[in-house]
Amino acid sequence: MNTKPLLLFATFTITLLGCTHVPVQNPGKVVRVAKLVIDPARLESYNAALKEEIEASVRVEPGVLSLFAVSEKGKPASITIFEIYANDAAYRAHIASPHFKKYKTNTLDMVKSLELVENVPILLETKTLLNDQPNLKTH
Amino acid sequence: MNTKPLLLFATFTITLLGCTHVPVQNPGKVVRVAKLVIDPARLESYNAALKEEIEASVRVEPGVLSLFAVSEKGKPASITIFEIYANDAAYRAHIASPHFKKYKTNTLDMVKSLELVENVPILLETKTLLNDQPNLKTH
Repeated sequence: MNTKPLLLFATFTITLLGCTHVPVQNPGKVVRVAKLVIDPARLESYNAALKEEIEASVRVEPGVLSLFAVSEKGKPASITIFEIYANDAAYRAHIASPHFKKYKTNTLDMVKSLELVENVPILLETKTLLNDQPNLKTH
Repeated sequence: MNTKPLLLFATFTITLLGCTHVPVQNPGKVVRVAKLVIDPARLESYNAALKEEIEASVRVEPGVLSLFAVSEKGKPASITIFEIYANDAAYRAHIASPHFKKYKTNTLDMVKSLELVENVPILLETKTLLNDQPNLKTH
């Protein structure tokens, strides 16, 4: 039996698989906590832009798992965004997305300060049926 | 037609309904962000107690929607817990629960500092199918 064509085919297939393999440097979830202080005079515009960006990101991007935006009680201009991405590649894809870039450009002069802290999960637990809760939308 | 018995019955029913009505001071979701620094020598014990408390709370309590515990990248003793409760009553029920009290008592001497900030939601968005994600359990 001439095994040469089979061997060639196997080599070709393995090479192809090798080429399509995407290396994942950090397969674990990325949790980023962003703390922002917004110019109070621009708060309404900022919140509208933020909501639009969050809604699009969770709906469109498979690797954006959760985006939770809250403001400190009694301090509406002090905002925290708790962000969960499937992995590092998903986070990088998010900050390169057109909706994120649009939000970033449009809100640049509304943000007085921004602090970003990268975190790693200890335990993330949530109820499945959150969609009956107003202000907690699921996709 | 004698309407007196009907009137009495109606009055009685309205009174009963009034008595069973539970006033809700804050019907909106409560989001609390807890920032803790743990004694590094006790970190393993602290994380075990925290995980046990989170798992029980989300599973048992209908008003505990999400509990997300993370540590700062490279600083495992700097912990943030992002907590979402259905309303103020759910939050108060949680801190009165046996599993929370057990966690609180057992970890008291492990916690070097604790900062609690109450927040209000701007927009909380999450994907529905989170249960295929390791470290992100749903109930």
